Amino acid sequence: MEHAKKDLAVEICRAAGRAALTYFKDRSTLIVDKKGDQDWVSEADRNVETLIREHLNAACPDDGIVGEEQARQTGTSGFVWVIDPIDGTTNFVNGLPAWTIVLAGVFQGQTVVGVIHDPIHDETFVAVRGGGATLNGLPIRVADGVPLSSGTVAVGYSNRVAPENVLPIVSALVSEGAMFHRNASGALSLAYVAAGRLLGYLEEHMNAWDCLAGQLLIAEAGGRIEEQDADAMIADGGRVVVGTLDVFDALQAMANEAWLT
Amino acid sequence: MEHAKKDLAVEICRAAGRAALTYFKDRSTLIVDKKGDQDWVSEADRNVETLIREHLNAACPDDGIVGEEQARQTGTSGFVWVIDPIDGTTNFVNGLPAWTIVLAGVFQGQTVVGVIHDPIHDETFVAVRGGGATLNGLPIRVADGVPLSSGTVAVGYSNRVAPENVLPIVSALVSEGAMFHRNASGALSLAYVAAGRLLGYLEEHMNAWDCLAGQLLIAEAGGRIEEQDADAMIADGGRVVVGTLDVFDALQAMANEAWLT
Repeated sequence: MEHAKKDLAVEICRAAGRAALTYFKDRSTLIVDKKGDQDWVSEADRNVETLIREHLNAACPDDGIVGEEQARQTGTSGFVWVIDPIDGTTNFVNGLPAWTIVLAGVFQGQTVVGVIHDPIHDETFVAVRGGGATLNGLPIRVADGVPLSSGTVAVGYSNRVAPENVLPIVSALVSEGAMFHRNASGALSLAYVAAGRLLGYLEEHMNAWDCLAGQLLIAEAGGRIEEQDADAMIADGGRVVVGTLDVFDALQAMANEAWLT
Repeated sequence: MEHAKKDLAVEICRAAGRAALTYFKDRSTLIVDKKGDQDWVSEADRNVETLIREHLNAACPDDGIVGEEQARQTGTSGFVWVIDPIDGTTNFVNGLPAWTIVLAGVFQGQTVVGVIHDPIHDETFVAVRGGGATLNGLPIRVADGVPLSSGTVAVGYSNRVAPENVLPIVSALVSEGAMFHRNASGALSLAYVAAGRLLGYLEEHMNAWDCLAGQLLIAEAGGRIEEQDADAMIADGGRVVVGTLDVFDALQAMANEAWLT
């Protein structure tokens, strides 16, 4: 089942990416609304989610759908699709080329398929549980043998938590000699960890649509993640700590010091 | 003079960008050396700088040249070219698509031409002193009317200073409700401020090749920068604080609190 679902997810993400790119190139006319402080949504987010839902409903009418921008659709198959139509909306509306389309498939409390598609750079990161992780069809692995003092770790934060809670993490990374990144697309950062471009990622609270695909990518690329029930993540979200074998324990210790487990 | 120099600089940056892209696409075979903790140089940096120097020497044999990777070449014209062959080397060697070619022209202590070229996204940011700033030939302006609490400010740091000195800046930005970015290419961040994509940028110490072009871009795009003698920056580098009219004073106050002026 997973491989057919994976092929479908890749095809849908690529179609969604083409639609999103059209909006991005003509973003001077984009209608943008504010959901909250530092929390934006554009007509591109809404319309790309609608496009993804239409494709999913046509191909798998019995599956459930959870998306960032629209109401949950309950299914009967037990398989649930989790959509972030545009991860990195702030970048998207401001013209920074760091945003992605994210689609995860959840079955029996586990993420079984994850796709993160970056249409600007034509990079499609894909994972199937037990089947490895790929970038544009070629296997990827997390970095190996790179200590914190020679590498870069990305962080994320939002107004869903107290923003100052990110500070002890930034401080701990700097004191370990790591460089920190923040590119405002959590899913893209997770994909980069899976591809060996960053050593890890920490965020106190992510929603399921931001993180499930990336966490599966990292696990399937040989990295470490915190085990979480995917249904619980869909309900409430949760903290995200991921990393290479070399740095995960240190990152988890930083997170445990700074945040609730 | 400046407009002929500008046309030359754009042409050279585009040629350098094509060469750099070839290395980037085949980076698995790239030879990378460590200059210091978290400070890398690759054969791409060295060879792209050589290419730029060859073009400059052919076109303007009397001009001086200062570059990140090779020795200073004294000229007789009083005009000095300042080269960063690849700004964002860490991103480059790790495969993150955030790096640029930077070329600035200095005359009588002032930056008079600045080019930041991003070959992956085919974006060329160009400024001529008194002549405005453009992106791919179209005028650009800094953001207008966006407060810190609705925008994003980028930060930079390196092992040239005490890395923990970046922490009070990150903390001050978060407490003002701003989002912070760090994409590990200072020049790209400066170009994004000029283009209205970010509100500002702060770094305790940048070298001339990293910042002169970007500072001119921001000034010419209607933003604010700290006045600095370009020759002194070539000699020693210095701190960089830039921003839109709305946020510059607040950013400068943060920098004054955290760092020496």
